[in-house]
Order: sequence, then structure tokens, then C-alpha cells
Amino acid sequence: VDLSELGEFGFIETLRGWAPNVDTGDDAAIVTLGGQTFALTTDALVEGIHFRRDWSEPLDIGWKAVSVNVSDLAASGARPCWILLALAVPPETGAEFLQGIYRGVSEACDSYGCVLVGGDTVRADEVVIAITAMGVVEGSPLRRRGAEVGDVVAVTGPLGRAATGVNLLLSGDPKWVLPEDALPCIDAHRRPIARVAEGIRLGAAGAHAAIDLSDGLASDVHRLAEACGHGVELFDIPIADEVLRIADARGWDAEAIALTGGEDFELLVTGPESVLGELIPIGRIVDDGVYIVRDDKRENLPASGFDHFSGR
Amino acid sequence: VDLSELGEFGFIETLRGWAPNVDTGDDAAIVTLGGQTFALTTDALVEGIHFRRDWSEPLDIGWKAVSVNVSDLAASGARPCWILLALAVPPETGAEFLQGIYRGVSEACDSYGCVLVGGDTVRADEVVIAITAMGVVEGSPLRRRGAEVGDVVAVTGPLGRAATGVNLLLSGDPKWVLPEDALPCIDAHRRPIARVAEGIRLGAAGAHAAIDLSDGLASDVHRLAEACGHGVELFDIPIADEVLRIADARGWDAEAIALTGGEDFELLVTGPESVLGELIPIGRIVDDGVYIVRDDKRENLPASGFDHFSGR
Repeated sequence: VDLSELGEFGFIETLRGWAPNVDTGDDAAIVTLGGQTFALTTDALVEGIHFRRDWSEPLDIGWKAVSVNVSDLAASGARPCWILLALAVPPETGAEFLQGIYRGVSEACDSYGCVLVGGDTVRADEVVIAITAMGVVEGSPLRRRGAEVGDVVAVTGPLGRAATGVNLLLSGDPKWVLPEDALPCIDAHRRPIARVAEGIRLGAAGAHAAIDLSDGLASDVHRLAEACGHGVELFDIPIADEVLRIADARGWDAEAIALTGGEDFELLVTGPESVLGELIPIGRIVDDGVYIVRDDKRENLPASGFDHFSGR
Repeated sequence: VDLSELGEFGFIETLRGWAPNVDTGDDAAIVTLGGQTFALTTDALVEGIHFRRDWSEPLDIGWKAVSVNVSDLAASGARPCWILLALAVPPETGAEFLQGIYRGVSEACDSYGCVLVGGDTVRADEVVIAITAMGVVEGSPLRRRGAEVGDVVAVTGPLGRAATGVNLLLSGDPKWVLPEDALPCIDAHRRPIARVAEGIRLGAAGAHAAIDLSDGLASDVHRLAEACGHGVELFDIPIADEVLRIADARGWDAEAIALTGGEDFELLVTGPESVLGELIPIGRIVDDGVYIVRDDKRENLPASGFDHFSGR
């Protein structure tokens, strides 16, 4: 069995057997010590897979590396405290690139109210940026498994911008249609913003479960369903206006982008309607299955989001 | 300026300007929250630089990745609690290799009394194993800067085994001289043991400062001297018996191996003699400079240990 066959889902399943203490069912690990609850997470970005130097400035890459980790803390309702950075770079890497990465990391830390406290820099053939983020949870942590049948499912914002940005960058067209729409989409890919305040507020307000939308709504909804042991029925896919206009001009499928594009880093949250009041409702927790309702008909929604091992 | 010119020392100096919150003067970052003190560290291993698959089993590589991080916690007097693993692997990597890495990580965690709580696996061109370790410090943390003039400088064990093991492996000689001496040296390279109990005990007993001997006694002593603002005078280099016998048989310089070889992962500790009673005394803290005393004469000791950027 090799990884290209396993894919990320299969790999996580296999991993459970190898390292039973790793709770792969949440965005961050939840641990307690001395009466305090902490959320811990690590996510690595690899050049050519998670970022490209011809698409993103070093500053943006550093920012993004922090944001994808802090987003996992946000999905746990945690307040980010400390960041560690393990950076693998080819020896010929320019100091300017490294400085940009560090500045981007520092800017993101300032923005999220956490501190870069440690790091390691090693020589490698390609750039790998591994960040570990630690946060503190004041009340009860948000966990995927907390979702209950009947919960409203809602998101903190409309979807599809980052994937649309990637599609525009991949298309290589220097004259983007509707540049005033294109730039926010490309920025969403380059400098995603983790929903920290929302995560803390929703956790404190009594939301039942949360997951950050990193791999695409479709696959992330499957993960939530698997973790909580129930099902999800979606009745709306909230698509960002820029995405709708660009998809219309380009002949792209806006709903497919929003469903499978990934990297939105909005939070998907479940709970009573009273708690999720300001969010965008998109569905509800049901007994089992993962469905999308179109024209009053339930269709099965496959988990076909972004998968690091099967390629993009 | 590129990294190959900077070397690790220069890089850390430069980094201080870019990320002022990163306190590069200790093995682990020390942070406090809610009245508790934590030590945090991250260290990455890269295939071909920090390990070779033809020299080490996956089980050993996983063990070592944890040990080098836990050793940083030990040098802070911290008790290891949580481990996170970010693993970058080529997509064609066999499941057997990955399983071995995870098993080695789990074995090391069990041995050190900590728990692997999270991880990320990403695709890359080469294997990079980035571990983050968190520990809790019950009393005052050990820090390099705590060394005081007049302190005894001592180590938790004799030096040179791991570097001798690497030299034997590099020599490629299948019939190693003195196999009963060679195997402990190769094991010291493959499966280093972090001095966790010693670090906790010495911290609680009132040792003043500590550093783990990861890059070589010479360079690590320079780091300690720089961090505390004083000097170090060494009057003895404790060399493991196996190293003495192998060096004698091979015509190698045993003292040079012990001084610059690296990867011993013994702790170098400073403090009053009463606290360091069971350790091997090797020198004392002086006003300034880094010296070795030979035949009653002081010689300057250059920092020429293992440097990841200049190659080994």
C-alpha cells in the first residue's frame, strides 16, 4: 500500500491503528493540565503543493502558514497563544525569502494575538514550513463530535473565493476578467484569515460543534458527519458574490468551486439557531448520510474535496 | 547573503532581528499561563542530513525525532507532556516506513512519559519530520543564561559515542573493529536517549543553567557562554571508553570526536558542586572566553561543532 493509493482519508484511518493516542477527529488536539484546557495543532505547508513562490510573496506564505494553524484553534474555540516554526529550506535560499517568511509569521501572530516563541531552521531540498500552534480554551472546547441531530449547520462566511483565486492563477491569464472581483479571490488564497473571534464567541455561546473549512465544504462535512456519528443535510451553498460573477464570466461551475475548492477557512458550526444567529445557515444535522437538497430532492454529496495525497 | 554563508550561528543572529520574540538563547522557549510554566520546542529532521534510511530503521528515526526534542525540554528542567508530529513524505513512500516512524515516535513517547496528541502528513520530495514538544516546569526552568562565574560545569555522561557511530557508518567497513564497542556507538547515533529525569532533578535541586549537547561540546559551550555573558574553562573532556578504544584502533582523534562530534544529548549543567555531585565535572564558569586547559596551559577553544548549514 502506498500513500498515493491511500489518500488522506485512508491514511488517517490507517494512522489510527498506528498511533491510537492521536485523536484525528478534531482540528486540534484538546489536552488539559492543572485545570487549564489547551488546543494544540500542527500543519505543514510544502512549496509547490500548498504555495508557489510565483503566486505568493514570502510575507503571504508566512502569514498563511500561521493562519491555517490558527484556524484549527478557532474551530476548537481556543484563543491562540504560542506559535513554533520549523522551517526546512534549500541552502541556497536567499535571506530575503527567509526574512519575508518570518515577517509574515510575525504579522499574522500580531494580528491573532499570539507570539512566535520558537523555531528551527534546517537544510532541505525544498521549502517545508511546519507550524505548531497552541491556544487556551476558556470554557468547553468545540469538537466535531459535539454535533446533535436537529442542530442548525451554519458557516461564518460565503465560500469559494480562495479556490477561484487559485483557478485564476492557474489559468495564467494576465488580464483577469473583473479585476475588482479577482483580487479578493486571489487574496483569499494568499492571505486567508482565521475566524478566531468567531470561534471563541461561538464556543462561549454554546455552539455544539465546529470544523474549519480547509479542504472543501463537501469533504469537511463528511468529516464532521463521521466524527459526530450523525448525518448532514445541506440546503444551501453560500457562494461569494465575486465567485458567482467570475464563474459566470468564465463559464465555471460556481457551486462546484464552493463545494470542493477548499482553503476558505470559514468555520462550519452546528448548534441551536439562537446561538448561530449571525451566521449563514446552510443545513442541519440529520440521523445519517451526507446530502444536498436540490429542488426539494435529496442527493448524496460525495466527499471529493481537496486531497493532499491525490494531488489537486 | 545566502544561508550557506550564514551558517547556523549567523542565521540565529540574523533571525533575532526578524523575529524579536523568538528567544534563541535557550533549548526550549519558556512561557507561562495561568500560573503554570511551560517549555516549548520544535526540531526537524531531514533525510540525508539528520538520518539515512540505510543506516537507521524507521523505528529508530521516529524515536530519534522525539528524543532530540525531548532533550531540549530536559535541558529546561521540564517534564515532557505532549508531542506533535508534522511529517512530509514523498507520495511513493511505503506504508511500512510511515508505520515505523509512527511506532518509533510512540515508543519514545511511552518511554519519556509524554503523549503524541496530533499530527499532519503532507506530500513532499523528501522526508522531513518536524516534531514539537511541550513540557511543564514544576519549579524554576533551567536556562542557559543562569550560569554564574565560579559555577562548576558538569555533564551527565561521557561523550563521543554517537559521532563515533556515524564515523563507523561513514567508513562503510562491514567488519567493524571491536564490534562490542561499535554497537553502542551506532546505537547512540540511532536511538539517543534524552536525559529527562536528570534535567528535572537538577532543575529542582537548584542547578543554575543547562544546555543539551546536540551540536558538539565545543559549539554548545560557546552557546552557553554567549547566553550567560560569561566564559567557560574546560579542564577535562570525558570520552566514552568505547570511543577511546575504537579511536585507538582506527587512528582517530578521540578528543576531537568528543569535542565536535555532536548528537551526544547529554546535558551540560552548571551550578554549585553540591548540586552536581553525581555528574562528571569538566570545567567551570569564568569571566569571559572559552578555553580548554591542557598541561596547565589555557588554549582558546573554537566553536567548530556540527553545523547544519555548512554541512558535517
